[in-house]
Amino acid sequence: MRTRFGKFYAAATTGAALSIAAFGSQAGETAMNSKYIERVAPLIATNQNQWLENDLWQREALSSRDRSIVTLSALIARGQLDAMPEIVEKALASDVTPEEIAEIINHLAFYTGFANARASIAAIGPVYEAHDIKAKQLPSDKLELLSYDKKAEQQRREFVDSKYGEVSPGTVSYTTDALFMDLWLRPGLAPRDRSLATVSALAATGQVEQVNFHLNKAMDNGLTETEAGEVITQIAFYSGWPKAFSALPVFKEIFANRKE
Amino acid sequence: MRTRFGKFYAAATTGAALSIAAFGSQAGETAMNSKYIERVAPLIATNQNQWLENDLWQREALSSRDRSIVTLSALIARGQLDAMPEIVEKALASDVTPEEIAEIINHLAFYTGFANARASIAAIGPVYEAHDIKAKQLPSDKLELLSYDKKAEQQRREFVDSKYGEVSPGTVSYTTDALFMDLWLRPGLAPRDRSLATVSALAATGQVEQVNFHLNKAMDNGLTETEAGEVITQIAFYSGWPKAFSALPVFKEIFANRKE
Amino acid sequence: MRTRFGKFYAAATTGAALSIAAFGSQAGETAMNSKYIERVAPLIATNQNQWLENDLWQREALSSRDRSIVTLSALIARGQLDAMPEIVEKALASDVTPEEIAEIINHLAFYTGFANARASIAAIGPVYEAHDIKAKQLPSDKLELLSYDKKAEQQRREFVDSKYGEVSPGTVSYTTDALFMDLWLRPGLAPRDRSLATVSALAATGQVEQVNFHLNKAMDNGLTETEAGEVITQIAFYSGWPKAFSALPVFKEIFANRKE
Repeated sequence: MRTRFGKFYAAATTGAALSIAAFGSQAGETAMNSKYIERVAPLIATNQNQWLENDLWQREALSSRDRSIVTLSALIARGQLDAMPEIVEKALASDVTPEEIAEIINHLAFYTGFANARASIAAIGPVYEAHDIKAKQLPSDKLELLSYDKKAEQQRREFVDSKYGEVSPGTVSYTTDALFMDLWLRPGLAPRDRSLATVSALAATGQVEQVNFHLNKAMDNGLTETEAGEVITQIAFYSGWPKAFSALPVFKEIFANRKE
Repeated sequence: MRTRFGKFYAAATTGAALSIAAFGSQAGETAMNSKYIERVAPLIATNQNQWLENDLWQREALSSRDRSIVTLSALIARGQLDAMPEIVEKALASDVTPEEIAEIINHLAFYTGFANARASIAAIGPVYEAHDIKAKQLPSDKLELLSYDKKAEQQRREFVDSKYGEVSPGTVSYTTDALFMDLWLRPGLAPRDRSLATVSALAATGQVEQVNFHLNKAMDNGLTETEAGEVITQIAFYSGWPKAFSALPVFKEIFANRKE
Repeated sequence: MRTRFGKFYAAATTGAALSIAAFGSQAGETAMNSKYIERVAPLIATNQNQWLENDLWQREALSSRDRSIVTLSALIARGQLDAMPEIVEKALASDVTPEEIAEIINHLAFYTGFANARASIAAIGPVYEAHDIKAKQLPSDKLELLSYDKKAEQQRREFVDSKYGEVSPGTVSYTTDALFMDLWLRPGLAPRDRSLATVSALAATGQVEQVNFHLNKAMDNGLTETEAGEVITQIAFYSGWPKAFSALPVFKEIFANRKE
């Protein structure tokens, strides 16, 4: 299994195509993808190897594990199903556990929409089946949830409630019950990584006006400035340069404010 | 037919998977979707039932009919084809007629792009085929179009023409001829529901800067403040929390302005 | 081969399966797609012909070649795979060469994300195979790259480096090495068309805050004000009216500034 796994990962680094070419109904798609690169835009294969596989993913500023979390979160946020098998292979090969991937998908169900999460599951499933992987993910009522700063949560709650409680009471109450009293307290994904997935999803979709809360939370939980800056570089290649350039001034201001 | 329909709807509430598992090329994908939830992220099934089916969709603040219109519009706007069969089943089961769905798709062809509309048709088609449904939708020249406020339309036209007539004359003339003199006057979908679909599409894609005109139009036509606020809650679950939080301040200001 | 082809494509994407069941011919596209159009939303076929094919695409303000570049770029930016075969057929029929399409895809890999580029290749491949087309695209090291304004590039580099060099050094260095010293200097696509593809992708995704640099660059290289204004009209129909109305004030200001 380990050998087979290694082989698939080696394949994955040259493109999703090969990495699951043997498994079920998605194989056609990804095999075609690689088959058609030569016919339609051969330079994409060259650039994928030159700039992404052999350069971006090798940079020390961010670990392969973090790059996998950033990229998978960006793909889920934008509904880019075709690229997920390759990135999930990278994630599994860089010690992101199936349980952590399940928590990322569940986290982004709330932060990018349940339809995004369910479409991602359909895209990732064949990879898990091929590796005979199954995530053991417990519902919240069977977990010991993380402790939290009661005073800070009380302040968040009062602020949001006073500001929007009359505008959309449902949104405000679910924000407390489903998100801050449940989702964010699940131990299956480190708070730092949960914030990293959230920040990546926001940057990938250009919703930078809401990065402040989550990037600060991530950095409070240990994400370094160097790592945060390199998240933008990863987003540039996977979500496009304009998304990166919309994130730069926001990240810059947050870095500066944290130094004051 | 009715029984069979009921069966399909019961299936739909547990996931798009089962609802069209028997029909053509989409079946594999959606069946896989349900099959893979347990393997990849089992909590999604739990949350889908706990938070969405048994809670969100049961709330009185917005009817199931309206929730179906909001959700279908959000999915069309973001091109989320996988989730459409399930939501179309919900729409049909909550008395949205095939003719109204056809008007929503046609309306959003203009408000989210013709490619979105046509991809949605391909995703929804198998459900209609399974239920032997066909929308009877007449072209405008065979309809008696709704009357409209000639003075208000004249003002809109003069404002847009003076502002953008020289920048993009084509956009300005199509806005009058294709949208305000045709699309918005079609009787197949109530003006209140047409605006609801538009507002939902804007909120789902974060284009809140253009909500003002359409939300006011919807409320002028009978959408209540309670319903509008709950639209944001529906968007939170189907398009992600950040989209909801970008909409909250805009809706709040519109509600306040309408009270002055 | 035909069966296998269909099977593969059905695996490849959901709706697109329909669009090239007859080897990517427009006939196959409309035939297959219209099967569900008639059932789900017949007015879409009427509007597609009345407003798009027989009106928008016939307008003199922008050539069919440019409209193909604008539309293909908009579809790649938003990941709308289903509509690509039809638009690629239009592009090939209006003298966009396979090499130019390859450069557009490669350009948008950087400006919309590599996953967008690769998914597009999978959607376009079958059309090329059907027509026995293959793009001959050389890597940069085998090309004579275009010359460039060294002073302007030096200023750009110093500006970006001083502003963001410490925030995200990776993004800043790749912007120089991969984009301005390589991508933008490739002769396979005219600079005016490269900027047109970039502006179209930005407008199609509502990232208008970054249109200024690229629209000015396009107009410096020969895109006229009339053509630029009509790009917005094309985007209105293919990416939705709100995207067009977010672009209008930005284009208007750029037009005004260029006259001062």
